[in-house]
Amino acid sequence: MEQEKINFKRTFPASKRIFKKGEGNDSDIFVPFREIELSDTQLEQRSFQNEPVVVYDTAGPYHDDSYEVDINHGLPKVRDAWIEAREDVEHYEGRRIQSIDNGFSKEGHKNYVAHPFEYQPRRGSKDTPVTQMYYAKQGIITKEMKFVAIREQVEPEFVREEIARGRAIIPNNINHPESEPMIIGKNFSVKINANIGNSIVSSSIEAEIEKLVWATHWGADTIMDLSTGKNIHTTREYLLRNSPVPVGTVPIYQALEKVNGVAEDLTWEAYRDTLIEQAEQGVDYFTIHAGLRLHYIPLTVDRLTGIVSRGGSIIAQWCLAHHEESFLYTHFDEICEILSQYDVAISLGDGLRPGSIYDANDESQFAELKTLGELTDIAWKHNVQVMIEGPGHIPMHKIKENQDLADFYCKEAPFYTLGPLVTDIAPAYDHITSAIGAAQIASHGTAMLCYVTPKEHLGLPNKDDVRDGVVTYKIAAHAADLSKGLPGATERDDAISKARFEFRWIDQFNLALDPDRAREFHDETLPAESAKIAHFCSMCGPKFCSMRLSHDIRDSYKEQLEGMKEKAEEFREGGNRIYH
Amino acid sequence: MEQEKINFKRTFPASKRIFKKGEGNDSDIFVPFREIELSDTQLEQRSFQNEPVVVYDTAGPYHDDSYEVDINHGLPKVRDAWIEAREDVEHYEGRRIQSIDNGFSKEGHKNYVAHPFEYQPRRGSKDTPVTQMYYAKQGIITKEMKFVAIREQVEPEFVREEIARGRAIIPNNINHPESEPMIIGKNFSVKINANIGNSIVSSSIEAEIEKLVWATHWGADTIMDLSTGKNIHTTREYLLRNSPVPVGTVPIYQALEKVNGVAEDLTWEAYRDTLIEQAEQGVDYFTIHAGLRLHYIPLTVDRLTGIVSRGGSIIAQWCLAHHEESFLYTHFDEICEILSQYDVAISLGDGLRPGSIYDANDESQFAELKTLGELTDIAWKHNVQVMIEGPGHIPMHKIKENQDLADFYCKEAPFYTLGPLVTDIAPAYDHITSAIGAAQIASHGTAMLCYVTPKEHLGLPNKDDVRDGVVTYKIAAHAADLSKGLPGATERDDAISKARFEFRWIDQFNLALDPDRAREFHDETLPAESAKIAHFCSMCGPKFCSMRLSHDIRDSYKEQLEGMKEKAEEFREGGNRIYH
Repeated sequence: MEQEKINFKRTFPASKRIFKKGEGNDSDIFVPFREIELSDTQLEQRSFQNEPVVVYDTAGPYHDDSYEVDINHGLPKVRDAWIEAREDVEHYEGRRIQSIDNGFSKEGHKNYVAHPFEYQPRRGSKDTPVTQMYYAKQGIITKEMKFVAIREQVEPEFVREEIARGRAIIPNNINHPESEPMIIGKNFSVKINANIGNSIVSSSIEAEIEKLVWATHWGADTIMDLSTGKNIHTTREYLLRNSPVPVGTVPIYQALEKVNGVAEDLTWEAYRDTLIEQAEQGVDYFTIHAGLRLHYIPLTVDRLTGIVSRGGSIIAQWCLAHHEESFLYTHFDEICEILSQYDVAISLGDGLRPGSIYDANDESQFAELKTLGELTDIAWKHNVQVMIEGPGHIPMHKIKENQDLADFYCKEAPFYTLGPLVTDIAPAYDHITSAIGAAQIASHGTAMLCYVTPKEHLGLPNKDDVRDGVVTYKIAAHAADLSKGLPGATERDDAISKARFEFRWIDQFNLALDPDRAREFHDETLPAESAKIAHFCSMCGPKFCSMRLSHDIRDSYKEQLEGMKEKAEEFREGGNRIYH
Repeated sequence: MEQEKINFKRTFPASKRIFKKGEGNDSDIFVPFREIELSDTQLEQRSFQNEPVVVYDTAGPYHDDSYEVDINHGLPKVRDAWIEAREDVEHYEGRRIQSIDNGFSKEGHKNYVAHPFEYQPRRGSKDTPVTQMYYAKQGIITKEMKFVAIREQVEPEFVREEIARGRAIIPNNINHPESEPMIIGKNFSVKINANIGNSIVSSSIEAEIEKLVWATHWGADTIMDLSTGKNIHTTREYLLRNSPVPVGTVPIYQALEKVNGVAEDLTWEAYRDTLIEQAEQGVDYFTIHAGLRLHYIPLTVDRLTGIVSRGGSIIAQWCLAHHEESFLYTHFDEICEILSQYDVAISLGDGLRPGSIYDANDESQFAELKTLGELTDIAWKHNVQVMIEGPGHIPMHKIKENQDLADFYCKEAPFYTLGPLVTDIAPAYDHITSAIGAAQIASHGTAMLCYVTPKEHLGLPNKDDVRDGVVTYKIAAHAADLSKGLPGATERDDAISKARFEFRWIDQFNLALDPDRAREFHDETLPAESAKIAHFCSMCGPKFCSMRLSHDIRDSYKEQLEGMKEKAEEFREGGNRIYH
């Protein structure tokens, strides 16, 4: 593909990509962070240096000054050597790509787009799985585990334990060596996912890559490619080769395309073929709605909004047409066997998640969740990494029950929720209705949050919507990290608050999740450069600036305050008695 | 003032203002609501009517088709007759308006703006207070209480009990008869406040009225006039005469203007004069930072962000300069006596609220809160209605403690919080960081939420910011109403979800908190009018529309599903045994 003049590179002001290197034998581990440089604190006579703030970074090489983007070549394969060194994989011919994979029933269609990436896929070459869970259970701390330990500021052995226990996953298919390992689990920082993908109103492949880079620039930890149009195989290939974060898909969407959109015509063979196709490409996790059992469907009949999961409604239709359990359920063992040869993680889909406040926490929802727990056991038996998808639309007082039941039925496998939206009455603001729920459920233990954009329920998100959605979800995730007391979680908050109190406006902008918008909003009322060192802002003006007054108080009454403080301490030490 | 061509009237699509009338002797009570008309549900052969949805409305006559706005005349005085009928007030000459009230030290300044409203203010004429709390304690159910009972769908006696108990307030100064009574208390729907007011970068008086009308259009339950520039007396007069909702102020701001911005020069006399000035105009509640005691100030010295309340920092500076307790604290009894003659409610300010996550829930914050509890007792002794202001910046795991301590120290007087923001790292998105905290604290019992706009910490909100702020806070408040299980709270959610599931797009827009934006977002991808009756949207397209599939399932497999459901019920009734 000819690369158009899209500039994929993104930067944040005063920021550079830095690496923390592994030690000793692990000097081939380079964990990326973003370092934000700060200005000095200026006091009347003196100035103090402020240490730069180092933050988690998801954007991969696109945040590297020196990196030259070539989407036809793809990103560096940072995990290649680690995978090969384990000597448990083989390269093989792989499944032949057919026109139907791209949605064309005949060969040689003029709209068919090929991709330039040539390689032989890998798969496990021995009787044992090649999954991080398998290694963890064997007591092996992989390079990937060491990578995330540095990224999360925890011990590598802790990472291994959590993965062995099934309480965390590192989704990284051995055929996606471009990805920088990241971990999803309740004892780590909360992650967010951004959905992208072309729909019928299809965008170009380049535009999809741009969305991917844009989403990870703002902080998306994984992306899901939900494409359903033409050339989805090629689109996915481009996304994987250019993605520094794990990529998830819902394989039933492509399988349905292969049978011309007729749910009843789906077969295990068509689905299995799609799983292998995508596993060979390097998809890191699959959403699989295997918990939607035939006898749960009648439980949805009295719902206000029926079945609102796309995958769920496809499976329900198939089950009713055949009057039998879905092939996802009946072939679940076989699915796990396949996935364990590539280390594709399973995201157990909640096909019966509620689509409205009215339907929240109903019988069908929790019946399916219980089945997801049974399937978790099966997946773990095969050493396949698992997470559990959750709702959806839930009023606040019913949120905790979702996390508690997921933990109980699914033994703390990472919970991955869509919101939940805490009210239905605000279409066009559903990034907010859902961030309220997302922050809460994450504080109870949800490990990853699927973002919702302002366009949810209304239309396709554009770039601005993706930015709003990702930043809003970074807020929810970070708020949960604070509430969980994760190591170092308050560092950025403290730095920005100090900058705010010291009227270091530029630092305040640069430390923000969205520096550009913060600066732009400030400059709307006070555009002059001099205002960026002013000891007040347009909100209250100089006379009423509480922070200026607060500084004045400290300066003017320093001695008095120190005296009062001393007296208060003496008083306290004396047992708070006024008369001795 | 010559009325410019600002159109103050606002409408929502398919909506009209309706009234629920009191019965018998109360036929002079007309409680406004907004009725949203819905289209019919169209099934293949039949159609069903959908009842209109009736929602709480705060916009007053501006939502009335027939109302003609005249800002120089003001709104109808709906409470006039009720106040007079109690025969406990007198009209008197009132305080003479001086140039200094409008920020001009000399008489006859060319920029001085007068207002056209001529009236004698009212005050209590007997030894007894004229407050709703006093009446409630006497066992009297006032017209105002009956009004809010209809508005909240509860019994009038319950309203009286809650007010007598101090757990709820109806802020309505007898000199603001234009206001439609509303109640603030944990056992009623959660309310929101919008701050308006000119700053140095002053806007015109008309622009302030427009902001007021705009904020109440979107759902603000009260507004606070935080003006600090010139002509603030006149601005406030215009706002009060044209406001259908209670108006709050922070009198210390104006008092400070009267002493040329020098905090040390403030006196009890200047402050007292300001209280009377504003009480005569009709301000419904005053924020008074009387709980900030001298010996709490040294507790703030080690804070990351000091004192961030404007009123708090003014008082702190005064206390240190004079090295004594503030006149707000020492004259609190006298303040209550004055206020009880006008029924001005007190909003006890939290001058030591934290300005950052780092400072949350610290010793100084809770020391002041305890004092607010003592002041609550004093106010109640005077039968003055009280609410308690709360923070600010609080991480999620420390939110509940704020509500619990406020309830404990202040005996469940209504809690009125600013957010709280749950993280500091997202300036330009602080309507969201704070709505996450606001929804949570409201679910624990906070009665009113002060909105935060996207411009918080950065600049002055424009009209779009006010809209974003109010709608975001309506979401937080409504989410809390749902979680508290208030009567009728889910009705709008259920109606919009039903409309969504039935592809009644127009109804979905019209039931939204922001119908215009919902429609605009939808139309960005599918602008054609035909798309508004389409059984899919641009998000998934027709083939992947789960809701369309869900309908297909119900239609195609109706008999099968009914059979399955019947069997499931038989099975359940048979005690869930498979073999009998």
